[in-house]
Amino acid sequence: MTVRAGIVVTGTEVLTGRIQDLNGPWIADRLLELGVELAHITICGDRADDVEAQLCFLASEGVDLIITSGGLGPTADDLTVATVARFCGRELVLDTELEARIADILRGLMSRLPAGVDFEAVLAANRKQALVPVGAEILEPEGTAPGVVVDGNAEGKPVVIVLPGPPRELQPMWSRAIASAAAQRAIAGRTEYRQATVRMFGLAESGLAEALREAESHIPGFAGLEITTCLRRGELEIVTRYEPRDDAAYRALVDFLRERYPRELFSEDGALIDEQIAALLAGRTIATAESCTAGMLAARLADRAGSSAYLAGGVVSYSNEAKVDLLGVDAELIAAHGAVSEPVAIAMAQGALSRFGADTAVGITGIAGPGGGSDDKPVGTVCFSVALTGREPLTRTLRLPGNRSDVRERATTVAMHLLRRELLGLD
Amino acid sequence: MTVRAGIVVTGTEVLTGRIQDLNGPWIADRLLELGVELAHITICGDRADDVEAQLCFLASEGVDLIITSGGLGPTADDLTVATVARFCGRELVLDTELEARIADILRGLMSRLPAGVDFEAVLAANRKQALVPVGAEILEPEGTAPGVVVDGNAEGKPVVIVLPGPPRELQPMWSRAIASAAAQRAIAGRTEYRQATVRMFGLAESGLAEALREAESHIPGFAGLEITTCLRRGELEIVTRYEPRDDAAYRALVDFLRERYPRELFSEDGALIDEQIAALLAGRTIATAESCTAGMLAARLADRAGSSAYLAGGVVSYSNEAKVDLLGVDAELIAAHGAVSEPVAIAMAQGALSRFGADTAVGITGIAGPGGGSDDKPVGTVCFSVALTGREPLTRTLRLPGNRSDVRERATTVAMHLLRRELLGLD
Repeated sequence: MTVRAGIVVTGTEVLTGRIQDLNGPWIADRLLELGVELAHITICGDRADDVEAQLCFLASEGVDLIITSGGLGPTADDLTVATVARFCGRELVLDTELEARIADILRGLMSRLPAGVDFEAVLAANRKQALVPVGAEILEPEGTAPGVVVDGNAEGKPVVIVLPGPPRELQPMWSRAIASAAAQRAIAGRTEYRQATVRMFGLAESGLAEALREAESHIPGFAGLEITTCLRRGELEIVTRYEPRDDAAYRALVDFLRERYPRELFSEDGALIDEQIAALLAGRTIATAESCTAGMLAARLADRAGSSAYLAGGVVSYSNEAKVDLLGVDAELIAAHGAVSEPVAIAMAQGALSRFGADTAVGITGIAGPGGGSDDKPVGTVCFSVALTGREPLTRTLRLPGNRSDVRERATTVAMHLLRRELLGLD
Repeated sequence: MTVRAGIVVTGTEVLTGRIQDLNGPWIADRLLELGVELAHITICGDRADDVEAQLCFLASEGVDLIITSGGLGPTADDLTVATVARFCGRELVLDTELEARIADILRGLMSRLPAGVDFEAVLAANRKQALVPVGAEILEPEGTAPGVVVDGNAEGKPVVIVLPGPPRELQPMWSRAIASAAAQRAIAGRTEYRQATVRMFGLAESGLAEALREAESHIPGFAGLEITTCLRRGELEIVTRYEPRDDAAYRALVDFLRERYPRELFSEDGALIDEQIAALLAGRTIATAESCTAGMLAARLADRAGSSAYLAGGVVSYSNEAKVDLLGVDAELIAAHGAVSEPVAIAMAQGALSRFGADTAVGITGIAGPGGGSDDKPVGTVCFSVALTGREPLTRTLRLPGNRSDVRERATTVAMHLLRRELLGLD
């Protein structure tokens, strides 16, 4: 049985994009783990009519569970609990015990504030946080705002979980919310799903679409696989959701993709290229020599905790003088081939090897644009060289699409993949 | 007159949080600039029924304009155009001229791909992108996917602007979309607003909230200012929306903030610190010496087109050996004070000056965590030195909050602000 859910994110600052919504994606992940299908996320400002319209929309779509985030504070524009109560046809009542517990929390917080704040005024403002819909289950606050779970089934409505907006409050309250009797009733009997991710590089999305159409006619049980594909930073992410009984079909799909694209399929277990590179660099020392990416590769290699075990450093040789002075590239080489050329990329990587005493190095030199292109070397032309001591360097020239920022980011990703191939001894 | 709009973001990868939605917030900003009120953002997966349900919901809420993003690709799960056509009661027809233009684009892209890709198969997969609703205005593609604008008014529906999902395609298509006859009809007669942005650095959001409460009681016409504040990368962004008649109140607010926070207010015209630094570096040559940020500052300085005029390069000296060998930092200095210390930051910046022959340099060394902290130098401790030839260096040590990624990004921003102060000769 499919259990469907919807998420209502409230808050004018989120709707207008001043604050990035972190709750929708976080709750989406939790629902996925639970095997609950997320149908809709809706975002609106702090207006009761808009919040109620979204609740009605989700109910009309037949979701079993609605989760709201935000609008539980003490101020006038915090109106989610009252709106959910009206939506479910419940009265709001003052829970005096909850009010006392909130007062205790506030007393603790106030002791840290400067004197002169009127405690009674604060209590009055917070009294509305102790107003709960009749019959609701209360979720004890992490900050000062309690959540509630309202089982709207008797009124022909979904179960509604009402949570506060700040992620540091919402997240610890989630497990209690989902353990509530009403939430458990809503998600009972759901089908359990598996989800698995495969990653490819160097393949167009349309090529994959074609391959998937072919797979559809070859693989028994293919219809049971819910496949979504996504192109990100030049990589294709293929996420498949399926019931355990369709495991054989999923394995057949991965076999099919591996056989069809042995070069492009680089991750069968969902691992990112960054994780693979980190593992492959164990026991090695790497240095970078970057021109157009200007430090993006070094910064990416340093993203992971513990990267100091293998990252010696790098040179950003943006000017020709820096290539000569810092990396020992021969000025005549630059004069003969141009700064963006394979001989210069090779010399940059070799310079990084020797200057940092590393055993692994990557050289990148390219034209990120918008200026600097020519007929011979248009904007997007990037030369790469991966050098491992004791081996011939791997050198490639590519023309990368997009604007300045795209070219630089894509070049960084290409460098990661060339590095992987070389460290694995492929090609 | 209030014109209301809704945004429909489609894509299973966005709904499930695997990709952060950048289009909703971006379009929200554009609508704000236009004086159009955004009522709802809704997000759903690549399911025609869910997309159509959201379109119907927004129509029932009486919005004048709907903008969709995503679902315009060549694969089977890209179904937005067909769904919008059904929603507006329009047939889909093949636009053969558009098909030819898409084929031209694909031919250009294919020439960069390895041989062996079946061009005819790609064309077939992309044919569906040339299917458009009868009577729709076509928005020429930035990638391969055209957008459309459908005026649903005759059918009692809103005007619908259909845009592709990738922000680098959606954003350049926006101005053409909003200039279309149908979109102009939808937004005609709206109240015009001004929007202005002020930026501050080194001030807590609660401090600003306090100041704004004070401003409220001092400034006549303050109530006409719609102020939203947002803390981002350690900078406070204060965006104010107001009708032209409230211009004097807005100018009074900026005067108030400048007088109250002369040090923290760094931008009165909305210019980013990056733009200010680029202008201040005109005629100069800068080099970086980075440890914990590992190239992020150099990469940020290279973000802007034309940065080669002032950026010589940088050294990522992640290891102590790199600090000594590449930047000439005295090994005994590291032994005496530790790699994360002001003397080492100063020596790194001086090394960058001399190695790159630059007149401006920044040295950064810090503990990004999660490991490596001590009682004396906890995680988040970062030492900065800004060196201009012929001046005493500006040196600071800060403790930055957050996780590894936060610390590194914040350190990069702090470096930009220290550089600005030094280039302006402040302090």
